[in-house]
Amino acid sequence: MNTLLDPKRTIAELKELRALTGDENGAQRVAFTPMWLKARAWLREKLAALPVEVHADAAGNLWATLRGESEQALLIGGHIDSVPNGGWLDGCLNVMAGVEILRRIAAQYAGKKPPVTVRLVDWADEEGARFGKSLFGSSACAGSLAMDEARGLKDKAGVALPEALKEIGVDFERVKESGRELRNAAAYLELHIEQGPVLLDLDLPLGTVLGTFGVERHAITFHGQAAHSGSTPMNRRKDAFLAAARMSPFIYELAKRHGGVCTIGSCTTKPGIVTSVVEECRITLDQRHLDAAGLERLYWDARDASESFAEDSNVTVSWERLWRIAPVLFNEELRSLCDAAIAECGAKECRLPSGPLHDAAEVARAGVPTVMMFVQSLHGISHNKIEDTREEHLELCVTAFDKLAEKTMGWIKQPR
Amino acid sequence: MNTLLDPKRTIAELKELRALTGDENGAQRVAFTPMWLKARAWLREKLAALPVEVHADAAGNLWATLRGESEQALLIGGHIDSVPNGGWLDGCLNVMAGVEILRRIAAQYAGKKPPVTVRLVDWADEEGARFGKSLFGSSACAGSLAMDEARGLKDKAGVALPEALKEIGVDFERVKESGRELRNAAAYLELHIEQGPVLLDLDLPLGTVLGTFGVERHAITFHGQAAHSGSTPMNRRKDAFLAAARMSPFIYELAKRHGGVCTIGSCTTKPGIVTSVVEECRITLDQRHLDAAGLERLYWDARDASESFAEDSNVTVSWERLWRIAPVLFNEELRSLCDAAIAECGAKECRLPSGPLHDAAEVARAGVPTVMMFVQSLHGISHNKIEDTREEHLELCVTAFDKLAEKTMGWIKQPR
Repeated sequence: MNTLLDPKRTIAELKELRALTGDENGAQRVAFTPMWLKARAWLREKLAALPVEVHADAAGNLWATLRGESEQALLIGGHIDSVPNGGWLDGCLNVMAGVEILRRIAAQYAGKKPPVTVRLVDWADEEGARFGKSLFGSSACAGSLAMDEARGLKDKAGVALPEALKEIGVDFERVKESGRELRNAAAYLELHIEQGPVLLDLDLPLGTVLGTFGVERHAITFHGQAAHSGSTPMNRRKDAFLAAARMSPFIYELAKRHGGVCTIGSCTTKPGIVTSVVEECRITLDQRHLDAAGLERLYWDARDASESFAEDSNVTVSWERLWRIAPVLFNEELRSLCDAAIAECGAKECRLPSGPLHDAAEVARAGVPTVMMFVQSLHGISHNKIEDTREEHLELCVTAFDKLAEKTMGWIKQPR
Repeated sequence: MNTLLDPKRTIAELKELRALTGDENGAQRVAFTPMWLKARAWLREKLAALPVEVHADAAGNLWATLRGESEQALLIGGHIDSVPNGGWLDGCLNVMAGVEILRRIAAQYAGKKPPVTVRLVDWADEEGARFGKSLFGSSACAGSLAMDEARGLKDKAGVALPEALKEIGVDFERVKESGRELRNAAAYLELHIEQGPVLLDLDLPLGTVLGTFGVERHAITFHGQAAHSGSTPMNRRKDAFLAAARMSPFIYELAKRHGGVCTIGSCTTKPGIVTSVVEECRITLDQRHLDAAGLERLYWDARDASESFAEDSNVTVSWERLWRIAPVLFNEELRSLCDAAIAECGAKECRLPSGPLHDAAEVARAGVPTVMMFVQSLHGISHNKIEDTREEHLELCVTAFDKLAEKTMGWIKQPR
């Protein structure tokens, strides 16, 4: 054990942050709000005790830089913003583990420069809770932010994103200038609670994240014919709901056949009254896969199935794409280092994909070698005040993540 | 052919009524409204030319009585009220065919009394379009009206049913006194458009109605657990929508197995967002069968299936009864007379159940021997301005219904 690292301090700081920026309903650090600014000010105080340079970039991301002998930089990322009524760990665990690692490295090199530069970044508005668009700061930095779409985003009060940014001193039209921060980025690491039940089910504390799922998101609408529920014989019906119901279990089977996950999250019916056959049934389908080809198979097999079930049910079907994003695979060398860091802590290695998106996906898409480490979530739940992780697992993840940082610094120094 | 009967006149009168009480959106004779009163006044004018006594009963039903040698009465029923934007035949075809039959009998006996009394009744508010409760006048007369429920009914403007009745001179608390009208009722006949596609599919003009379906109407709710669509493995889900989707085709199969019809008319999902597994899925189920035991089987097999599909999907299920009504079978002797009347007109006999309810069901429930005759509907559609029936079929149905009336008068006179 590295005795300069104090994981218990990370837990204490997370509790301090919770007391400062949460209430009885959970964390309230919604990005670009006064509570978020309060959390940021608190973070700056913590960083002030360290030999780091702190600045906010053109997109409002906060960077703390511990200069090393090489300009090549190890980046450690997280986000201090939360959803409303959020959990006490999502995003800020990553940030505070990063602060502890900066402390350890600064102490270890005691006034001298570490071999590589180490930088902590607190991404602005990972959650997208206020404007409905997640990964704002990291996508601006990575250059993938869709400016026209983002320019028009408004919160519930009608405030546009550019106005909210202006209030914190950020010029919306220049947010992509934050991309310069990635200039010497040699590796990016992110620790996160799993937010799902996989590690809990396996009874494992830690896992190496393979990458983030690609997503195909569609609305599927079956078009039948309304008819009186009493006077219309069964063989004369064009029942849009029945077609959707017949298809749905098959769509779920596709995830068994091809891997990945799929979810029919909503179903609406028109006219939607008890005395009429359903004329129109609309379901939303969310399909996710770590492998681009696997995602394609999920999607096309579902389309084919919908046509065939529609035909069998004497109705028609139409598809509308709501959103899509390609899978992001993390760097295999860094994944191996992450496995090794976990194993050195006495935990069993485990690799798993990430269903939710993370800032790490944006950084990886920008070409920076990236990996994430997951720590077990109790209840498999996040974005809720009951979100939790055992304290021994929190301590363990800070230790393992620090080992990963150490190994990655060595990897950056390797001649290639 | 009885040359005293003029079915073409019935069609002409129906067109006259349409011109008087319809607009470009269809019939507008909603019960207890000025347009309905206008239709009633027009009907009274038609009846004024006949040797009949006309009065409104305690429930607002309009009776025209042609006294016979016997007080034993043949009743012929219909309803001149319509839904808003209704069709030109639903309900008033029955009334105007009844008027033509009264004319034929009055002419045939030319000043002398026919052997039995013949009475036409125009039931008040069959459709229930304004207060949401159908069969008002006939259920009051039959004694089955639920007074406490009806007392509280209000229209969209907040007017209570008792207030609306008061305006047309009906005292709500005394509506069941109309029951005395059934005292000497020996048989009840009703002609109606089919409102479904069965006769159209069989290419037959007329049918004998076996009875009206019993109905079991329920809301079925599956209770699962919301979970993130990306981070929750398929085998960890409690997907309420999937359970409903799996069950639904099986529920429809039950109608093949046991007869009858069933309809899942609506499906709602909570939280109903694209990124969450469905926590709660509520569907409405409407099951109909002509046979009480068959309806029981449909219902209990569906309940059993819901439990079993819920268990397989790791969710729970609850049922809430919305409504039920027992099947009503019409009188077999009258059904045979109806078959014979149809055959005598050169049409092929056909027996079919009625999916929708009719005033005839209330009269039959009150113990009066009853039968209905259906005439083919084009498009299988009613409650819509496109509702229609071929004119040759309209003529044929008036002729056949008159033959049924004639036969039924003979049947009433038979010693039993």
